[in-house]
Amino acid sequence: MDNAHDTIATTAPFDTAKLDRLMDEAGLDILIATSRHNVQYLLGGYRFFFFDVMEAIGTSRYLPVFVYQKGHPENAIYVGNRMEKFEHDLGRIWTPLVKTGSWGTIDAMGLAIDHVRKLGATAKRVGVEASFLPADARDHLRAGLDDAELREAHFTLERLRAVKSPAELDLIREASERVVDAMLATFSSCVPGMTKNDIVARLRHEEHARDLVFEYCLIAGGKSHNRAPSDQLLAAGDVISIDSGGNYRGYIGDLSRMGILGEPDSELRDLLSEVEDIQQAARRVIRPGAMGGDIIAAGEAAVASSPHRTVLDYTAHGIGLVSHEAPRLTATGPVPYAPYDADRPLERGMVISVETALLHPVRGYIKLEDTLIVSETGWEAPGDHGRGWNSSRLVA
Amino acid sequence: MDNAHDTIATTAPFDTAKLDRLMDEAGLDILIATSRHNVQYLLGGYRFFFFDVMEAIGTSRYLPVFVYQKGHPENAIYVGNRMEKFEHDLGRIWTPLVKTGSWGTIDAMGLAIDHVRKLGATAKRVGVEASFLPADARDHLRAGLDDAELREAHFTLERLRAVKSPAELDLIREASERVVDAMLATFSSCVPGMTKNDIVARLRHEEHARDLVFEYCLIAGGKSHNRAPSDQLLAAGDVISIDSGGNYRGYIGDLSRMGILGEPDSELRDLLSEVEDIQQAARRVIRPGAMGGDIIAAGEAAVASSPHRTVLDYTAHGIGLVSHEAPRLTATGPVPYAPYDADRPLERGMVISVETALLHPVRGYIKLEDTLIVSETGWEAPGDHGRGWNSSRLVA
Repeated sequence: MDNAHDTIATTAPFDTAKLDRLMDEAGLDILIATSRHNVQYLLGGYRFFFFDVMEAIGTSRYLPVFVYQKGHPENAIYVGNRMEKFEHDLGRIWTPLVKTGSWGTIDAMGLAIDHVRKLGATAKRVGVEASFLPADARDHLRAGLDDAELREAHFTLERLRAVKSPAELDLIREASERVVDAMLATFSSCVPGMTKNDIVARLRHEEHARDLVFEYCLIAGGKSHNRAPSDQLLAAGDVISIDSGGNYRGYIGDLSRMGILGEPDSELRDLLSEVEDIQQAARRVIRPGAMGGDIIAAGEAAVASSPHRTVLDYTAHGIGLVSHEAPRLTATGPVPYAPYDADRPLERGMVISVETALLHPVRGYIKLEDTLIVSETGWEAPGDHGRGWNSSRLVA
Repeated sequence: MDNAHDTIATTAPFDTAKLDRLMDEAGLDILIATSRHNVQYLLGGYRFFFFDVMEAIGTSRYLPVFVYQKGHPENAIYVGNRMEKFEHDLGRIWTPLVKTGSWGTIDAMGLAIDHVRKLGATAKRVGVEASFLPADARDHLRAGLDDAELREAHFTLERLRAVKSPAELDLIREASERVVDAMLATFSSCVPGMTKNDIVARLRHEEHARDLVFEYCLIAGGKSHNRAPSDQLLAAGDVISIDSGGNYRGYIGDLSRMGILGEPDSELRDLLSEVEDIQQAARRVIRPGAMGGDIIAAGEAAVASSPHRTVLDYTAHGIGLVSHEAPRLTATGPVPYAPYDADRPLERGMVISVETALLHPVRGYIKLEDTLIVSETGWEAPGDHGRGWNSSRLVA
């Protein structure tokens, strides 16, 4: 064994009583998690570095598998790639059982099946993540556990993660602060003649310099509402909307700030104030015990009384390891999902992203997006700086 | 439309005649690709920036879908996320049909099904990528095309990609050169007292500075054979093995180089020479028309005549958009896959990674990994510098 000094977890790093209760409600005896985010959560933050970016290898892909039997954390197993023996030897995997013998989807699931079989006759109802379980791995699971009933475990796992621990909140604070810091550093280096691609390259650099994994940047400039990076040139007076996600140890900071090449005129100031008013209206209702739907209602009411109501987009969603997760406040999107939390009380430790965009036909795309942590008495807003117009220089 | 000047592809950016032939051989009428790497290939390099790192969103995940009807590139369709309208408006997607209305697995597959149905009665045999097709999306596909037979398309797509185009080879050259440059810059900044984590952070920085996406770094130091980054401290005289993957526009540079904190003694020089001899023996047989298995046989023969044969690991594999892909030279791994190319001739434009590691019980982990492009008369080795001992300073 190496001279490692990493922290070694010896018990489950999540609330097993809560998971047991959620599994009871969903009628699950066994949980088989295969998504990166849920496996990371159930392993207490561990994620195998080798497949942090890529997934395909050989004729198949990396498939981490976490198996949990309701009421029996002592029977939890993690199945990883054979190179994860390095990580296991360093004591980074908490599960009492660890198998690092897999290379693709079928052998990984095969090791999980072997384990579930040993658990015996109670393993009838097995929860899986059908959107994150490759079709061939599910075929193998069905064939290997032919007396089991497979059920969807998405809701169970999302509820488990909906209230963040203090350690998770620290990561979300860091992610949010660093993303905004990177944006402000980027705006301060913008000059006319740069392209949107140049600005995104700069932002990527600033996020990397702050130890973030750069995930994406949606960027609009000038009058355009197109938010893909491109070689569109920016000129003096152009507004710049930056909406970027950067993750810090898996947790996403996702905020939007506005820049301008020069100084904003009074109309631009008014437009951003209008956006700001909606953001603040939404915040005012956030506190433990408020219904999730109150956030949507408050924002929509503010939109309705706004001069630009016909070109305003307002929404709110939970955020954490996944960029849109519980609490579920809206049913929007081409495939509507249930707004689970519209009629449930917000809880301390939930995290909500609130976003308002004004698609002005002449002045451009004007947006703010903020992250709100539900606190004991209301909310806390990490990365809450730079919310006005951030002026860039007109000469290099 | 924005003032975009991006290149707009108007015809298929891959060899449709070759794909048609491969589909004929596999008995496929329709191909439905859903892996990131194959969708990127079939779209001529396009990959939606927003989901470059993450995949989960909402209650599901991003699922790009490319549909191709054999012999009819004019019927090709791409189904993307609704934000990909920005990319489509910039002319970045070549397919005659583009739908950017999806958000998760089910609605994405639903749009693909609608399209296949319109193609009519010939669409009986549908190729899919079962390791990269979420179980719920395949359920939807089966229900939506209930008269179709689903077949595995992995082999078809891998053969299509096995010979790289000149443009792809340029990207592989860049990736390889830049990864090695980043490694040498990293070695030059190592000093005793740094940890393996420190060195990996430095390498990440050096790869980012060269416009690479840092994928991973396997690192061993001192006597240890553990290759996970950790807070293991490095001291004067320690050897350092760095094996890193960095991608340049999706193409992977994956090479290994050796460093040492100080100067190597004669035993270390001999050990690295032994590794080098095996690497060179493997190279000597690489040329168009040689059998893929010749590379394995040549390396294994060199290992067999080596003093440290019992602690030598030698292997070779294709590389490109995926870190282990065709040509398939070995059947190793916990789940053996067929060594398809052992008895097939190598072709000009194939790319092969050759790797030899010597796990010395006292002196540590000593490895070289190189990338070889099969050229008209033999091979070309991008990033072929820094293959000896790279000495680091002993004081900062």
